[in-house]
Amino acid sequence: MTTIGFIGLGTMGSPMAANLLRKGFAVAVYNRTPGKAAELLKLGASAASSPLEAAAQADVVVTIISNDSAVEEVYYNEQGILAGLKPGRTIIDSSTISPALAKRLAADVAARGGSFLDAPVTGSKDGAIAGTLLFMVGGSKETVEANRDVFLAMGREIVHMGENGSGATAKLGHNAIVGINAAALIEGMAIAAKGGLDMPSFLRVVQGGGAASKQADLKGSKILAGDYSVQFSLALMLKDLKLGSVLSDGLGVPTPMLEAAKSLFQAGQAKGYGEEDLAALARVYEEWIGRRI
Amino acid sequence: MTTIGFIGLGTMGSPMAANLLRKGFAVAVYNRTPGKAAELLKLGASAASSPLEAAAQADVVVTIISNDSAVEEVYYNEQGILAGLKPGRTIIDSSTISPALAKRLAADVAARGGSFLDAPVTGSKDGAIAGTLLFMVGGSKETVEANRDVFLAMGREIVHMGENGSGATAKLGHNAIVGINAAALIEGMAIAAKGGLDMPSFLRVVQGGGAASKQADLKGSKILAGDYSVQFSLALMLKDLKLGSVLSDGLGVPTPMLEAAKSLFQAGQAKGYGEEDLAALARVYEEWIGRRI
Amino acid sequence: MTTIGFIGLGTMGSPMAANLLRKGFAVAVYNRTPGKAAELLKLGASAASSPLEAAAQADVVVTIISNDSAVEEVYYNEQGILAGLKPGRTIIDSSTISPALAKRLAADVAARGGSFLDAPVTGSKDGAIAGTLLFMVGGSKETVEANRDVFLAMGREIVHMGENGSGATAKLGHNAIVGINAAALIEGMAIAAKGGLDMPSFLRVVQGGGAASKQADLKGSKILAGDYSVQFSLALMLKDLKLGSVLSDGLGVPTPMLEAAKSLFQAGQAKGYGEEDLAALARVYEEWIGRRI
Amino acid sequence: MTTIGFIGLGTMGSPMAANLLRKGFAVAVYNRTPGKAAELLKLGASAASSPLEAAAQADVVVTIISNDSAVEEVYYNEQGILAGLKPGRTIIDSSTISPALAKRLAADVAARGGSFLDAPVTGSKDGAIAGTLLFMVGGSKETVEANRDVFLAMGREIVHMGENGSGATAKLGHNAIVGINAAALIEGMAIAAKGGLDMPSFLRVVQGGGAASKQADLKGSKILAGDYSVQFSLALMLKDLKLGSVLSDGLGVPTPMLEAAKSLFQAGQAKGYGEEDLAALARVYEEWIGRRI
Repeated sequence: MTTIGFIGLGTMGSPMAANLLRKGFAVAVYNRTPGKAAELLKLGASAASSPLEAAAQADVVVTIISNDSAVEEVYYNEQGILAGLKPGRTIIDSSTISPALAKRLAADVAARGGSFLDAPVTGSKDGAIAGTLLFMVGGSKETVEANRDVFLAMGREIVHMGENGSGATAKLGHNAIVGINAAALIEGMAIAAKGGLDMPSFLRVVQGGGAASKQADLKGSKILAGDYSVQFSLALMLKDLKLGSVLSDGLGVPTPMLEAAKSLFQAGQAKGYGEEDLAALARVYEEWIGRRI
Repeated sequence: MTTIGFIGLGTMGSPMAANLLRKGFAVAVYNRTPGKAAELLKLGASAASSPLEAAAQADVVVTIISNDSAVEEVYYNEQGILAGLKPGRTIIDSSTISPALAKRLAADVAARGGSFLDAPVTGSKDGAIAGTLLFMVGGSKETVEANRDVFLAMGREIVHMGENGSGATAKLGHNAIVGINAAALIEGMAIAAKGGLDMPSFLRVVQGGGAASKQADLKGSKILAGDYSVQFSLALMLKDLKLGSVLSDGLGVPTPMLEAAKSLFQAGQAKGYGEEDLAALARVYEEWIGRRI
Repeated sequence: MTTIGFIGLGTMGSPMAANLLRKGFAVAVYNRTPGKAAELLKLGASAASSPLEAAAQADVVVTIISNDSAVEEVYYNEQGILAGLKPGRTIIDSSTISPALAKRLAADVAARGGSFLDAPVTGSKDGAIAGTLLFMVGGSKETVEANRDVFLAMGREIVHMGENGSGATAKLGHNAIVGINAAALIEGMAIAAKGGLDMPSFLRVVQGGGAASKQADLKGSKILAGDYSVQFSLALMLKDLKLGSVLSDGLGVPTPMLEAAKSLFQAGQAKGYGEEDLAALARVYEEWIGRRI
Repeated sequence: MTTIGFIGLGTMGSPMAANLLRKGFAVAVYNRTPGKAAELLKLGASAASSPLEAAAQADVVVTIISNDSAVEEVYYNEQGILAGLKPGRTIIDSSTISPALAKRLAADVAARGGSFLDAPVTGSKDGAIAGTLLFMVGGSKETVEANRDVFLAMGREIVHMGENGSGATAKLGHNAIVGINAAALIEGMAIAAKGGLDMPSFLRVVQGGGAASKQADLKGSKILAGDYSVQFSLALMLKDLKLGSVLSDGLGVPTPMLEAAKSLFQAGQAKGYGEEDLAALARVYEEWIGRRI
């Protein structure tokens, strides 16, 4: 039986680990805040006391951590993954990080005889629970194939993007579109609201026309209800747009849409909406137009 | 039998008039360029020699014309609709025009004892042919109800947005989102392309994730194929963004996303891509990144 | 002695008319709000009861009015300038209006045998008082030359830009730069303030370096003092950026900088700072960064 | 006599080192490309074979190097400054780098008993030759005072901004304004050119009005002449805007103006104008408007 070391038990990680357990994998979990492991231990997980320990006993290590610097800690600290990595192991990182870091991790894992896949996901919390995530994966195709069962325990689809770093790049390109589409929806709704339209009707038109989008489906009616309970927080959206901006700067791609969206989410963060759903950007527009959307 | 005066036989107007004929309406058609009527005459339409003549013999007049100034001509010229309008008639304008003009038309039609609906559509050419357009309508709810059969001969859904001008406002808010979402898709694809990703895989991720949108569905694979045959021209997209910008300026809504998109499509227009599909904005990015998307 | 009809006694118009009186011109003044004429009457002006009356008795008419629609009223109303215009007269309009309206006014004045110059100014209130305005003038060079003494009674320099409409175009291009440079200053100061710099030192660096600008000189220390008493109001700045945006849209010039600035001033207007100086845009950034600049 | 170790003999560094020699300092120079030292050796400089050697024999080390990674090399390599640094020495870095790196250098210099000042300059090549640079300095006020003679041999003014990192922050805030003002000028000129204005007249208006700026003075007539010989390259301008964007992201300051400018210069870089003067951004607009500015 394949043993999984699973590191990072946040909003996404916990249900992903639970799905691995349900599919019969042995899973050793580690999280910086230990309390988060309790429910998984009930489901049969074992507890590791450090990333090193989680990695040392595993065939495959899965990590999903909030940002570049937290990922660096988990991999490079004294009690980090790399310190305990044995040759022949596979590491799958599903964090949203910079492609530059993904490539560095891949090189350092390879230097220790392991294989690294950067494999961020789309699907958010609901998809993590339902096991319907889509993985966009950078790294060797052979490693991807060898770990199909691990991926498909957590998600419904694996898309191979290219060599290491490609998964991370795909995620940032994808999330740039998410952020822009969400801002587009909200800006259009602000025009409609200030223009005095019946708002459910406007949303109906958006969802039924060329303006339709996943973001309109996910956020439209929540915005009308003023419900900003977190599915994907504004702060994380902003983080990804910042990573996307640095990536684009490095690639030399002018990205005026991404930058315009980034400035808006930054205004939302500055207003204190970072820990609400990204749809709370609507509040920035509501203050501008002096009325509810 | 209701007699329709139909004015404006462009990409959208011709199939809409054809659908009215197929549903059994008597239709008198007028177009500035007379040749465009030929096929409709074969389907049983009669030819009017002016907007006035088309309006004079009709119970309901439908107009769908390219822009504000062309609409003004058709309504206000000596041989225009208003000159031939009899009391009790209904005029449905499906052009994409400024809400200010829609309100003026409504007032001038009302002054002649008629009823005006601003009723732009979403659905593009394919929807016009299939009769699956969605109408977003401003004006009296009674007039909308009284003309359900006319609308449903051409489309699948009628959404009442509010008083006159609301249909036009909804269309501009909707199309602002269309333009931004299309630019988002293309910018994300440019990042992906410059980042060396497998592009069909990236598009798969976009369509399967939170970045999914109608624009991604409609344009994604066409962009990869370099197919910019017109469904909705870049020049018309730009026109609508300009109208949306003026509308937002008047309403006092800051619209940084719309403006960023407008500048991009303006660059596309300046490069000579106005008569291609709006997806030809991809060419602007392709020149920037020095390779095909 | 040349008789001047002077219409529009606002912040700029009053001191301009006063300077004409001081230089010995006979001046008949008109303003919609009559009270504003009081001080000029003491300086020897006569009062006209309508634009028509002011124009009828004058050799040269000078107008400086707040916006396109107010200008249209003053020229085209029953008691407007054109109704009282005799052949051979010159009209100088120093309002900031759209080039399209300037061209229309020029044509309608010419049709009545007169000559029209669109001649907006730069220099603001202080320059109007000191008589050091710069006129950027569109229209026939001969008419400009024939009226040098009128211009130089109010300003220090006349720059001929080209045919009618060119003065208005120059003003909008100029003011686009003003708005962008002011926003640039404020954004740079926001970075500096949030970065914890000594702000007078930062301003010193800006004024002494490549970032120096007239806006930095005029607004920098006022912003540090929180002094937003009006020199040029935020609402008028926004008006000019909107006109500039429409002009650029018509010309087909992509203007991402102008649009970004316009969105910012729109946010300032929405926040209620329209009647303060344009430098009150700093307040928008102060709310974003959570501290004083 | 104070001995200076001078590292970085580029466009700015060479004339700065020459001015130190002229004022009587002993100067040991190092540059990665050794040929660049030839002229300074004639003026009396001695040649160091590595940063370590230059630092080891000096009382004060001055560095001015192109970017973060080149600075890191010069300080941290085996033959780098830190390896040869003796306690009590002062290091002045006039490179334009990220405040984060400036703070790290300061800490590492302090750990070796030295004092570090981040002291970027404004004034460009001409100011470096004339010795009229302005230094914006972060670090201890005592260290600044103790080195006044060194600074004033190269420049005319020292502005103390605050603790270490403040000089770097000030430079990035300053250069953000430079980039935006330059883009503003060019965009305004593009509107004017497409609007058919007499361009020298327009520039006269800009320089005489509220739109006046150092960038208009430095670049306006050069743009009209199509002269893009480098004073400050487009690639370096873009580099500084990227650093400014990352800094603002870290500080949480929304910077829509900076981002709009960054996208434009990125388009210029993508078009191949990176090694021309930053004013070559005008070429991007020229292509958009289809005519010369």
